Amino acid sequence: MADYHSLVDADELRRVVTRIFEKAGMPGDDAAWTADALVRTELDGTSSHGVIRIPDYVARLEGGGLNPGPKVRVVKDAGALAILDGDNGMGHVVAKRAMEDCIERAAQHNVGAVIMSGSNHFGAAALYSRLALERGMVGLCTTNSVKIIAPFGGKEKKIGNNPVSIAVPGDPPVLLDMALSQVARGYVLQAKLSGKPIPEGWGVDSEGRPSTDPAEVLESGSLSPVGGYKGSGLSIAIDAVLGALAGGGHSHEIVGIINAEKPGNVTHFFGAIRIDALRPLADFTAAVNVLCDLLRATPKAEGAERIWMPGEIEHESAGERRTSGIPLLPGRIEEIAKLTRRLDIPDMELIG
Amino acid sequence: MADYHSLVDADELRRVVTRIFEKAGMPGDDAAWTADALVRTELDGTSSHGVIRIPDYVARLEGGGLNPGPKVRVVKDAGALAILDGDNGMGHVVAKRAMEDCIERAAQHNVGAVIMSGSNHFGAAALYSRLALERGMVGLCTTNSVKIIAPFGGKEKKIGNNPVSIAVPGDPPVLLDMALSQVARGYVLQAKLSGKPIPEGWGVDSEGRPSTDPAEVLESGSLSPVGGYKGSGLSIAIDAVLGALAGGGHSHEIVGIINAEKPGNVTHFFGAIRIDALRPLADFTAAVNVLCDLLRATPKAEGAERIWMPGEIEHESAGERRTSGIPLLPGRIEEIAKLTRRLDIPDMELIG
Repeated sequence: MADYHSLVDADELRRVVTRIFEKAGMPGDDAAWTADALVRTELDGTSSHGVIRIPDYVARLEGGGLNPGPKVRVVKDAGALAILDGDNGMGHVVAKRAMEDCIERAAQHNVGAVIMSGSNHFGAAALYSRLALERGMVGLCTTNSVKIIAPFGGKEKKIGNNPVSIAVPGDPPVLLDMALSQVARGYVLQAKLSGKPIPEGWGVDSEGRPSTDPAEVLESGSLSPVGGYKGSGLSIAIDAVLGALAGGGHSHEIVGIINAEKPGNVTHFFGAIRIDALRPLADFTAAVNVLCDLLRATPKAEGAERIWMPGEIEHESAGERRTSGIPLLPGRIEEIAKLTRRLDIPDMELIG
Repeated sequence: MADYHSLVDADELRRVVTRIFEKAGMPGDDAAWTADALVRTELDGTSSHGVIRIPDYVARLEGGGLNPGPKVRVVKDAGALAILDGDNGMGHVVAKRAMEDCIERAAQHNVGAVIMSGSNHFGAAALYSRLALERGMVGLCTTNSVKIIAPFGGKEKKIGNNPVSIAVPGDPPVLLDMALSQVARGYVLQAKLSGKPIPEGWGVDSEGRPSTDPAEVLESGSLSPVGGYKGSGLSIAIDAVLGALAGGGHSHEIVGIINAEKPGNVTHFFGAIRIDALRPLADFTAAVNVLCDLLRATPKAEGAERIWMPGEIEHESAGERRTSGIPLLPGRIEEIAKLTRRLDIPDMELIG
């Protein structure tokens, strides 16, 4: 851990962030869940989707871009399948409800698939797929997202990094969460805020040429799709299905979170498969554990210290940070302090 | 088209390949479907998964590795969800039945999900996802596959290139089919058979170092996962779910098609979503078409001639090759001629 980080206890961070969202107009339970989601993301070490987003979320709640008290509505109930509308609520809140709805459908029909339109930026996709784990199900989550990538062969951003998350019961669970850009936008944002260049391959400039300037990539250029035509193609396929099922709101029509006033128009997809409809859950997880142990024991390539299963780095990070605290950069501390002062919330206490 | 290719009419190729599989013991309908699948793949220009595989398939049918007359069995019927056993049949044949079963489940429950264990190499995943299109559904297909990639950080092949295919109704359909190696194994095989080096980034040698020698990559090294840890993670997540649901047969336990005697032990996954349960199909396809037109019109990056939607290159290739014929390399012609001579089938007629 670089020593320019301060440390905050997870419970304290959760308390402060909950209060911020309450003051910004959200009901207590919704504020608490959103805070919990952001703290969980920080525990996991995925700081690109953590508290760095709070100022934008608050600006959107206050500016009318986000509905602080959404009424989630089932637009069409088709048994194992449904489409819900998020009433332009905070993505974290309405996505959780949609995944819970999906899990109930899977409990009844053994498979559930739920599309949610009228939503907003929901942070890390793994927040929702993982909800299936406690019910002994495989969870799936994907979403379309604001245009940030040029389609393969193009030089203008038109497609989203549309993350895909798959949660698989195991000890620990296999918990994949991958954006379809070479790296998540949040990491480029972090580099920009830290004043650091980005590695070549992460993004291109306005003419489609490789760039190491995070500001240029974010503002006039675009992120590169993972694997070139593959990531580009998967992003397009996801957006084609989600936007067309929702009836509007493809990636190029989505409003990003830096806009405080307009609805995001994001569409998510949630899926769940009930394992014990096919096989005892214990047999399933035992097989997953055997596979993971075998893969962890693969002879290591030069320079590799360890072979990680999907989600394992995050799992270990969360275990450590629950005890040692969550490291936050000075910029994050300052953003939170600005909000607590303005919203008349007691200061966040640091532990180091 | 390089002039060392010969041309064969699609119908003639279908006739000959059907006869080959019949002579190798497959029932007429199954032989015809398998031939049709391979011809379709050649029409699409995906020659890595086309007739190049015939000698291995025949060797497996004759050597006992493949059951020529499988009885597909529903192991567990759970309504919208099911697990089927392919009775070690030809992957193309039993995968088609599983996808048809999945589509029937989706017709009834609006979503269908089918796992098929006890299968074998099934060629291009798009062959099955696309079956959903004629029923106005979104189709999904993935599979585990023989170990050919080292997990990220490792230097020994342990995971499969587990392709993912998504079929989305449109004009033409969006038809994604991507392996999770940087490139499909078939392209490395083609390079080896053509005596050509492969580009850096496609694979590594036995110590995990980049290699441009296709034989080395195939025999002692491994393919590289697309996007490093991303492709590696997605491959692991797919295999964790499929192998654990099937109750055996993770990628490292799968027998490749160059083994003539042992069952493949491959597990596939099929999914289908019934669009008109949520929205009129015509509205859906109209939205997909608008999205694709908008993406095709993206200003082009330096050197790009056109921006292709997923499956569009294959769609245009098939249109051309239906008229002009399918180009086959001398090696392919010779392999087929060897089989027709040995199996007492009239020679394949070429048109150029």
